Amino acid sequence: MNKTEEQNSCHSGRVISFTQLNNEIKEKPQPRFGGDEIRVVDAMIDIIYPSVPFPSNKIFKTLGAEYIRKMVEHHHHLLLKTNIKTLFPQHPEALKLVIDRSVDFFVEALGGGAVFTSQHGDPHLRQRHFKIPINENDREIWLAMYKKTLKELKFPKEHLEEFWNWIEPLSIRMINRRTNTNAIKRHHWHDVKTELLQVNV
Amino acid sequence: MNKTEEQNSCHSGRVISFTQLNNEIKEKPQPRFGGDEIRVVDAMIDIIYPSVPFPSNKIFKTLGAEYIRKMVEHHHHLLLKTNIKTLFPQHPEALKLVIDRSVDFFVEALGGGAVFTSQHGDPHLRQRHFKIPINENDREIWLAMYKKTLKELKFPKEHLEEFWNWIEPLSIRMINRRTNTNAIKRHHWHDVKTELLQVNV
Repeated sequence: MNKTEEQNSCHSGRVISFTQLNNEIKEKPQPRFGGDEIRVVDAMIDIIYPSVPFPSNKIFKTLGAEYIRKMVEHHHHLLLKTNIKTLFPQHPEALKLVIDRSVDFFVEALGGGAVFTSQHGDPHLRQRHFKIPINENDREIWLAMYKKTLKELKFPKEHLEEFWNWIEPLSIRMINRRTNTNAIKRHHWHDVKTELLQVNV
Repeated sequence: MNKTEEQNSCHSGRVISFTQLNNEIKEKPQPRFGGDEIRVVDAMIDIIYPSVPFPSNKIFKTLGAEYIRKMVEHHHHLLLKTNIKTLFPQHPEALKLVIDRSVDFFVEALGGGAVFTSQHGDPHLRQRHFKIPINENDREIWLAMYKKTLKELKFPKEHLEEFWNWIEPLSIRMINRRTNTNAIKRHHWHDVKTELLQVNV
């Protein structure tokens, strides 16, 4: 089992993850059906949604609300050029509402005050996204377009790690449509920092 | 926390389920965003897919292959009258293939020999259903139509408990599209037996 798979597993008594099982059945033959006795197949989980380190207000103090707006708009602009554009409203006014709400969320989460919660209540990001099917690959695209945004907008390099360590696991929480038993791909800071810091040199 | 929610939770260190969190945030206020320090939100799981007691060959010995075919066809006939008919192929020949494969699976799982695995390989039911989005309510309909089938076809009452205890948790494994953070509704034998046994009296 590799490291990513281990991180997505649950070792609570006999409860294992589909990811683990996937590995185990490569090694041992499947039990037979319809024997003389009832055969109990263990309880399982899907994946562990990793912990999410929400950023401090240091980022907002450097970026300010205007930069954050520009960043969220740029990200959405890029997303609308990808396959997942179908997940966003087509009507310009409905789309604007979605982007504005996302701006408010990012401003508040980064330390700019309760501009989201005062209007919309608790974020409950997973719950808010339930109406839209979001699979593992949709999340890959969302995150890749954030990486592109951070590079193109020259996000201040001293805050990149804290920001990335937040959005990378956060994006996993939005997945509500599973299409395979693989572990969710992680994009850890140590794997992306060379690419992200390069443009800021 | 009620019993169903407890059964769907994962107590592995600090890993809890979205269902549990849902209950906890009703009791305590949400932490604030953008404080002076990074704030780590715990890792979480979605649900525990409960263990599945696969039946013994006693059922096949009573029912035989012909009854099982009739039962699976009847179930599909009912499903095609519900909202989830869209999850099945429209073309009659494609639909027939799906039903035939399902018959083979039920025959083998109930003890009729390797008629499924010899043709199609390992069942991997969760994997086989990944291409179709199946949510919590789709599973409710699937199971309700099985209950109706068992009543209408007068399934032998001495095997009802073993059969039901298999298909009820099995149907949860097929869910691959989550639309809420609720625990998956259980339909335990003790809750359905009066209804199921009534028609056999």
